[in-house]
Amino acid sequence: MLLTELANRIGAELSDPGAVIEINDVCALTDANPFGVTYVSSEKFRHALRVTTAGAVILAPALAAEAPCACLLVDNPVLAFARAAELLHPRSRSPVGCHPSAVIAAGAEVHPSASIGALCVIEDGVRIAAGVEIGPHCVIQRDSLIGAETRLVASVTVCERTIIGKRVLLHPGAVIGRDGFGFARDGERWIRVPQIGRVRLGDDVEVGTNSAVDRGAIGETVVGDGVKIDNLIQIGHNVEIGDHTAMAACSGISGSTRIGKGCTIAGAVGMAGHLDIGDDVHFTGMAMVTRSFEQPGTYSSGIPAMPSADWRRNVARFRHLDEMAKRLRRLEERVAELQKAQRDQAD
Amino acid sequence: MLLTELANRIGAELSDPGAVIEINDVCALTDANPFGVTYVSSEKFRHALRVTTAGAVILAPALAAEAPCACLLVDNPVLAFARAAELLHPRSRSPVGCHPSAVIAAGAEVHPSASIGALCVIEDGVRIAAGVEIGPHCVIQRDSLIGAETRLVASVTVCERTIIGKRVLLHPGAVIGRDGFGFARDGERWIRVPQIGRVRLGDDVEVGTNSAVDRGAIGETVVGDGVKIDNLIQIGHNVEIGDHTAMAACSGISGSTRIGKGCTIAGAVGMAGHLDIGDDVHFTGMAMVTRSFEQPGTYSSGIPAMPSADWRRNVARFRHLDEMAKRLRRLEERVAELQKAQRDQAD
Amino acid sequence: MLLTELANRIGAELSDPGAVIEINDVCALTDANPFGVTYVSSEKFRHALRVTTAGAVILAPALAAEAPCACLLVDNPVLAFARAAELLHPRSRSPVGCHPSAVIAAGAEVHPSASIGALCVIEDGVRIAAGVEIGPHCVIQRDSLIGAETRLVASVTVCERTIIGKRVLLHPGAVIGRDGFGFARDGERWIRVPQIGRVRLGDDVEVGTNSAVDRGAIGETVVGDGVKIDNLIQIGHNVEIGDHTAMAACSGISGSTRIGKGCTIAGAVGMAGHLDIGDDVHFTGMAMVTRSFEQPGTYSSGIPAMPSADWRRNVARFRHLDEMAKRLRRLEERVAELQKAQRDQAD
Repeated sequence: MLLTELANRIGAELSDPGAVIEINDVCALTDANPFGVTYVSSEKFRHALRVTTAGAVILAPALAAEAPCACLLVDNPVLAFARAAELLHPRSRSPVGCHPSAVIAAGAEVHPSASIGALCVIEDGVRIAAGVEIGPHCVIQRDSLIGAETRLVASVTVCERTIIGKRVLLHPGAVIGRDGFGFARDGERWIRVPQIGRVRLGDDVEVGTNSAVDRGAIGETVVGDGVKIDNLIQIGHNVEIGDHTAMAACSGISGSTRIGKGCTIAGAVGMAGHLDIGDDVHFTGMAMVTRSFEQPGTYSSGIPAMPSADWRRNVARFRHLDEMAKRLRRLEERVAELQKAQRDQAD
Repeated sequence: MLLTELANRIGAELSDPGAVIEINDVCALTDANPFGVTYVSSEKFRHALRVTTAGAVILAPALAAEAPCACLLVDNPVLAFARAAELLHPRSRSPVGCHPSAVIAAGAEVHPSASIGALCVIEDGVRIAAGVEIGPHCVIQRDSLIGAETRLVASVTVCERTIIGKRVLLHPGAVIGRDGFGFARDGERWIRVPQIGRVRLGDDVEVGTNSAVDRGAIGETVVGDGVKIDNLIQIGHNVEIGDHTAMAACSGISGSTRIGKGCTIAGAVGMAGHLDIGDDVHFTGMAMVTRSFEQPGTYSSGIPAMPSADWRRNVARFRHLDEMAKRLRRLEERVAELQKAQRDQAD
Repeated sequence: MLLTELANRIGAELSDPGAVIEINDVCALTDANPFGVTYVSSEKFRHALRVTTAGAVILAPALAAEAPCACLLVDNPVLAFARAAELLHPRSRSPVGCHPSAVIAAGAEVHPSASIGALCVIEDGVRIAAGVEIGPHCVIQRDSLIGAETRLVASVTVCERTIIGKRVLLHPGAVIGRDGFGFARDGERWIRVPQIGRVRLGDDVEVGTNSAVDRGAIGETVVGDGVKIDNLIQIGHNVEIGDHTAMAACSGISGSTRIGKGCTIAGAVGMAGHLDIGDDVHFTGMAMVTRSFEQPGTYSSGIPAMPSADWRRNVARFRHLDEMAKRLRRLEERVAELQKAQRDQAD
């Protein structure tokens, strides 16, 4: 593809509109090649930019003077790069139709433009819309709906009555709609409370590898449009996640917690149940969220790692922090008395 | 179903024994319908109770006066609701017999009343008892035993020689009995120590989505009767968990730790290996368990989230907590000297 | 097997070379049997050693005097025990060839000495080397390479273009090579950045149950030779892990972080992205790694669990730790002034 065409298709302005450069790949800034296009998203890569061997670089106009190669000028370099990567590395779609090894119930409706991979199981009452791609080894249980252009990569399990929107992407091992963890006590025993709700995933949702979204106990677990859920994440029953919230790997959200729109939740965050998290709330990695945060802002917790010997000493003191605070208070009182006595004496 | 029949079957007393009300669903207190039965488990829902539109509500007698609808009076409303939900939403059992697409070894024994779903793999030496339901895409490896009425929902992997009790429930992606993480050092290299033990799950155990229970290195990993394990949980080799202990999602138990009976372990708890946790021990969410806790009680750790700016300042101080404690001690000594000097002077 | 033969094959010296003892099993030190061989790796099992009923014990010469049975003397008892267990419990290999239920694309190359289990899916362009064992229900997507003698236990998913070394062991539910979690912002929406890289696993790597290794955004995610990854672990895109590093369960490594050789990472550790971790760095359980650690050493974080009432009090103080530190500083100044005043007065 000629650079001029690429610029045109990703909506970039060329620093040198006359340049005739062929681009057939994307590449990293520091491991580049002359037929590759790369990008710079931040000032801090200025030095690497100066010495890149890429054929072209996507960047904001302010950095163009530093580039040793052709520049594609845009406001949002990461977004433009995403588009370039899609053009240069188009994904090959699975062939339309059902693989003969798939087990498809008579009562399932599969749109003729959909693709069902090898060894899938599609149960009764399932409806699969136009353009859906189901990779190998997926299981879709009774009465679930899969919206148009949605893609299940492979080995995904969708439990009964789940509703999945359009253009959703589910990665291998994701399990959508299993029973939530709800029990009644009967003396010392736990008796399962039937989980009769379901999961509803909005449009453009993504759920990562080996993540779990449990269905509502009663009612729905709701994942809003554009929500991105990374790998190994647990979403409890009746959780609601607002549109365009993103969650990094290894986090867990307990039952009935509501999260607003446009939030970001970094890796390994834990949230207690029945909380209310507002819009535009951001949690840093490993945050322990035990109360509601309704105001926009960034919230954190945890003790970053330090040499173990220092850690042991500090942790030993932490165990007595309340006592330390009381000693400090008493000492302040004693010092105040001493000061007063000294002043009295001076008078 | 008439309310009188429902009351009878769940062991509840009717507040108005003469009422003729039809109930055909369960519903939430705040999203109710006139043919639905709901429940109230705590005083704190008193306000929602007053305005519910449910046809009937299950509750303790003390709250009955607040209800705007028929009351089903019981001591344990959650338990009674669980029973009502089972009656009103009976689960449809899979058809008895083996799906023709399942691959069942000649040397496997499957009880005629069991159900084996599509595309399952049942290896040699496996024995499957009466009433077992194996959903689609499960793998049961050599010489494993599956007890009566146990259910594998879908996509469950049971590794060789595992022993599974009666009425067990295994959710999609659960892996029972893989090799534990045991290695010997050989210079800089790690050499696997063969894991020749197995897993034994008691009766009425539940293991959640994408959770892993590793088999014993030698001997058994033992999960007691009635233990409930949520999603994305790791149980290391030779762990023993006492009857009726429950563990919430994202927790991990390291090898050879023993946990007593009736414990509750909240989400994302981590336990070191070779610990002894007594009966009736409770850990709150994200607790970091580095030593044995043999006495009943509730134990906690972690720093709850706060605004990031506050957190950064406090964490910076934590790094010097030991030094702070020493400064406090020195200051106490200096103040004591000052007080003594002042007293001496006053004398 | 005669003890003399066992000693010979594991490279041990017999304490009593004339003893005629038959050994046919390995056993635990405290649950032993007279035909079993066990081992002692540390002084702290001295007491258990004295009363073991094992037929023979593998140990370091220094402990031999305590043993009530035949001794196999070695420098590294765990390693010698691993070898003994392999001899006494040899794993039965799967039969060579492809199970008739497997779906193998015409364009895949499977070495005749390899074994492909029931209901596997092997896509076009995949190459499977000599001696590979693929258990049931595995999916290997386009253009992946599986090195000689590698074993996929069951239900493993290998995504497209993955390169897997020799003698690798992948446990059930592991997912190697899915798209990383990379997005560009487009106003409030997240747009996926195509992940066009791949994963490269070295020789002798192990990846545990339900763990995920994401492929590079551009370039590779690299797991070095001999690296051992336990269950439920997340490895982000473009992470690089040095040879012979081991990671315990439930840990997560964010994108582009580099970890050196010979590191050990205990359970539930979280690492931020773009960090540099040197060789021989060790993190204890639940460590929160927010900055680079380039020097060898052991690093820790987190607050170990304590009784909840104590924890609540101490946490309340932690929230004001910065203020406490400032009060301490002011108090030190006031005391210094008091001391100075007292000295002035005394002069």
